[in-house]
Amino acid sequence: MNKTNRGNFFEDFRLGQEIVHATPRTLSCGDVALYQGLFGGRFAVASSDEFARKLGYARAPVDDLLTFHIVFGKTVPDVSLNAVANLGYAEGRFGVPVYPGDTLSAVSKVIGLKENSNRQTGVVYVRSTGVNQRSETVVEFVRWVMVRKRDPEAEAPAETVPETMPRLPPDSWHLPPPLPAGAYDWTLAGSSFAWEDYEAGECIDHVDGVTVEEAEHMMATRLYQNTAKVHFNQHSEGQGRFGRRLIYGGHVISLARSLSFNGLTNAFRLIAINGGRHAAPCFAGDTVYAWTRVEETLAIPGRDDVGALRLRTFATKNRSCADFPEGAEGASGADPAVILDFDYTVLVPRRG
Amino acid sequence: MNKTNRGNFFEDFRLGQEIVHATPRTLSCGDVALYQGLFGGRFAVASSDEFARKLGYARAPVDDLLTFHIVFGKTVPDVSLNAVANLGYAEGRFGVPVYPGDTLSAVSKVIGLKENSNRQTGVVYVRSTGVNQRSETVVEFVRWVMVRKRDPEAEAPAETVPETMPRLPPDSWHLPPPLPAGAYDWTLAGSSFAWEDYEAGECIDHVDGVTVEEAEHMMATRLYQNTAKVHFNQHSEGQGRFGRRLIYGGHVISLARSLSFNGLTNAFRLIAINGGRHAAPCFAGDTVYAWTRVEETLAIPGRDDVGALRLRTFATKNRSCADFPEGAEGASGADPAVILDFDYTVLVPRRG
Amino acid sequence: MNKTNRGNFFEDFRLGQEIVHATPRTLSCGDVALYQGLFGGRFAVASSDEFARKLGYARAPVDDLLTFHIVFGKTVPDVSLNAVANLGYAEGRFGVPVYPGDTLSAVSKVIGLKENSNRQTGVVYVRSTGVNQRSETVVEFVRWVMVRKRDPEAEAPAETVPETMPRLPPDSWHLPPPLPAGAYDWTLAGSSFAWEDYEAGECIDHVDGVTVEEAEHMMATRLYQNTAKVHFNQHSEGQGRFGRRLIYGGHVISLARSLSFNGLTNAFRLIAINGGRHAAPCFAGDTVYAWTRVEETLAIPGRDDVGALRLRTFATKNRSCADFPEGAEGASGADPAVILDFDYTVLVPRRG
Repeated sequence: MNKTNRGNFFEDFRLGQEIVHATPRTLSCGDVALYQGLFGGRFAVASSDEFARKLGYARAPVDDLLTFHIVFGKTVPDVSLNAVANLGYAEGRFGVPVYPGDTLSAVSKVIGLKENSNRQTGVVYVRSTGVNQRSETVVEFVRWVMVRKRDPEAEAPAETVPETMPRLPPDSWHLPPPLPAGAYDWTLAGSSFAWEDYEAGECIDHVDGVTVEEAEHMMATRLYQNTAKVHFNQHSEGQGRFGRRLIYGGHVISLARSLSFNGLTNAFRLIAINGGRHAAPCFAGDTVYAWTRVEETLAIPGRDDVGALRLRTFATKNRSCADFPEGAEGASGADPAVILDFDYTVLVPRRG
Repeated sequence: MNKTNRGNFFEDFRLGQEIVHATPRTLSCGDVALYQGLFGGRFAVASSDEFARKLGYARAPVDDLLTFHIVFGKTVPDVSLNAVANLGYAEGRFGVPVYPGDTLSAVSKVIGLKENSNRQTGVVYVRSTGVNQRSETVVEFVRWVMVRKRDPEAEAPAETVPETMPRLPPDSWHLPPPLPAGAYDWTLAGSSFAWEDYEAGECIDHVDGVTVEEAEHMMATRLYQNTAKVHFNQHSEGQGRFGRRLIYGGHVISLARSLSFNGLTNAFRLIAINGGRHAAPCFAGDTVYAWTRVEETLAIPGRDDVGALRLRTFATKNRSCADFPEGAEGASGADPAVILDFDYTVLVPRRG
Repeated sequence: MNKTNRGNFFEDFRLGQEIVHATPRTLSCGDVALYQGLFGGRFAVASSDEFARKLGYARAPVDDLLTFHIVFGKTVPDVSLNAVANLGYAEGRFGVPVYPGDTLSAVSKVIGLKENSNRQTGVVYVRSTGVNQRSETVVEFVRWVMVRKRDPEAEAPAETVPETMPRLPPDSWHLPPPLPAGAYDWTLAGSSFAWEDYEAGECIDHVDGVTVEEAEHMMATRLYQNTAKVHFNQHSEGQGRFGRRLIYGGHVISLARSLSFNGLTNAFRLIAINGGRHAAPCFAGDTVYAWTRVEETLAIPGRDDVGALRLRTFATKNRSCADFPEGAEGASGADPAVILDFDYTVLVPRRG
């Protein structure tokens, strides 16, 4: 009897199928510290229990992207072990904050299937939901991946491509309770720029660059229990498409988010992931930079303590962002140095 | 006065000598997280407090091998600082589970001594025992190492070679209390293969490979406070036998155990270490693969919730295990890619 | 509006200015574990809750140097983002112990300013103080850095160079309560050498060497939220002065402290940092060694449980310390392998 899991192939998925992913995971302050060592985050809410408590949190919540990576990681053995490419994200939304001690698990539902014309691969669309030990949603998102077929001759299901929204409406967001008046300490946070100071179209160069090492991206990806083979095995990848281990795309998202502190210091909470594209691969030795364009400034009805910004953050490799190089979908065409084009929504305190 | 500890040489050991090792160590969820980042384990019992509690644990126990490495590390400054080689293990047995917050310390007893004929070195046999803050045994094992003599002319003690059992009898195992009926969630664990599904002689390729980086094995070995010089000092090792830092043998054991999740998903607890041999050195840049042969399936008298499997896991470097290469003691002779031959016993839930 | 912080330049500082640094930081057992994995410390007080409690601590305190690095890191974005060189330390003093769960923040006061004659740079002297959530001082120190001017023509403030003491008087030290009689377990600590066994002028070779990897020093420096650009960006540093990422000087201090366990096993607490000089840069791939000269043995009035040692620890790169190479200020002149000359005071139990 063959007991090894070789992952699902395109023809193994069925529309409407629900997959309960394995390996629930209790997050701890140890995970938070390792994430800190890997990305160097400085957002005060995630850094200080004291700062977070003043805003109404029980203590410092786990970084939103760590939650995302943990949930994403759970889906890999079932959804994308035989993936050729991670094609996109949509309708991502963060739920209740995650604290050390919470246990996360994940389920996915197959919401679309589309065989490619060469019959070698197909696109699988899933909606994945991560929950805590009280079954409260911590993050959910749609993603679609190109998955190999085991047998090119295998019959493909009828083509279904789900419609997704370009961004979720604000009334679907999970918002924290109102911040107590005067509770947000701008000095300790590191900047006095409030939600009112940002305007649509504004571009921000995050200035710094950080070089990635093999040990770092592998430790991060294992922390998330993400088992995608291409990140870990130089012996096989050395003979593959790139001759290198490929860095998990989410690693670049976290690097860019961390760099974005410089200019988006008070963007203390991710609300939504509207879309994302890994425009080019990243490898160990590459230096990652980032810049952000403010796409929309969104007042939130009934809230005068916080507002939202829809942002598009571009990460580049081995090229500074002082002149704002754009991604594959940018107005001026693709810059080959661009590796990430990430569309997301953050919460920023209002000056009031 | 020379205050530096240069470690014990062969002629410093006495039969029956008891050594109380230094540096008690409180394990925390931080150690668990770093171990997670280094090895990427997915066994649900060690990953989730919720999953563990349903089986009767107070919370997720520390990975058995992390306990082993911590206790092993304590013995190094006294036993093997001047070792030429770590020759073997026997009669290893795990005790009560270790939880974050427990403080481990270790003692060793010298149970055998045998000078080599060249008079340059001798073999030291010790039985090492790790205990928690309540003096409960967490792991014990016999190991033997080849240790340099300070002075080849020094008189050697009478030769004593202890007899060790090829495997400890089941009535000497430390078993957890019976799992509550229906408590083991096979879906969340990641596989439905129960104890009854394994049979003696069965071979399992764990498929995946992982490349090791210098930063990773050094961080792991420092986490265990293991001070063996060969792992850390490129300046001296560059002029040594291999021209490289040598990776701690236990690092390969942990990599192999982690890879073995794919095929041995429900082997949630290590019971015994029957033997082990580091057949060849491992260096940074090597990619480690593993496969396992089921040596015995062992029903446990009075227990219908769990059964035991005696396993032999072989790790290789830079060679996949699809054709099950065997170790130095294998029937087909040595394969030079084999770096570990590890004989141990695990607990697996019965389907019931 | 430009929202990016480019750091302060020399002409931005004012004598007497007080800077409240951003990003309070709650330390956790996760930080302790990652620090353990990076430096491999073996001092029993910081390793074991049980050992620490016997001496009167609530539990194992955070390593003193981790506290120092965290506080130092907070000052970087305001004080030394545009620094050319970190010139020196003085009047460093540790305060109350830090435990996991404590939240640290930091303020600095500008106590001196001196433009250099080339008008391109100036020296900024600051006194930085780190406090916990109860506003108790955990560490304070004076440091001075050479900082670039934004505009060489900018007018410089009147020159003020503060006087600092070569070492703080013992009555200014923060001492722990007396150790309970018989509470210090020399065997578990790892050595029987007590305060009485050390004498002024004594030199100790710490024997071991450890090679540093890029991933390690970057993870450490990010753990401290230290944002100095030179440590992280190979793309820009490759075109810079050294062609390499420069390792944070504090990384070498921690490596040397960890190595010093071998010979200074019972130096369980840092009391003061009297001075320090990073004599030469350290890069990934370098192997760091250390040796220590005991400068003074200091009995503490009213205390027969502990005494102090003023130490000078020298770290070297790629050169063992068996012959005690000295630093830039040493009697025999500079040895180019010396990278650190660190003058500090430790507490050691008395035999009584």
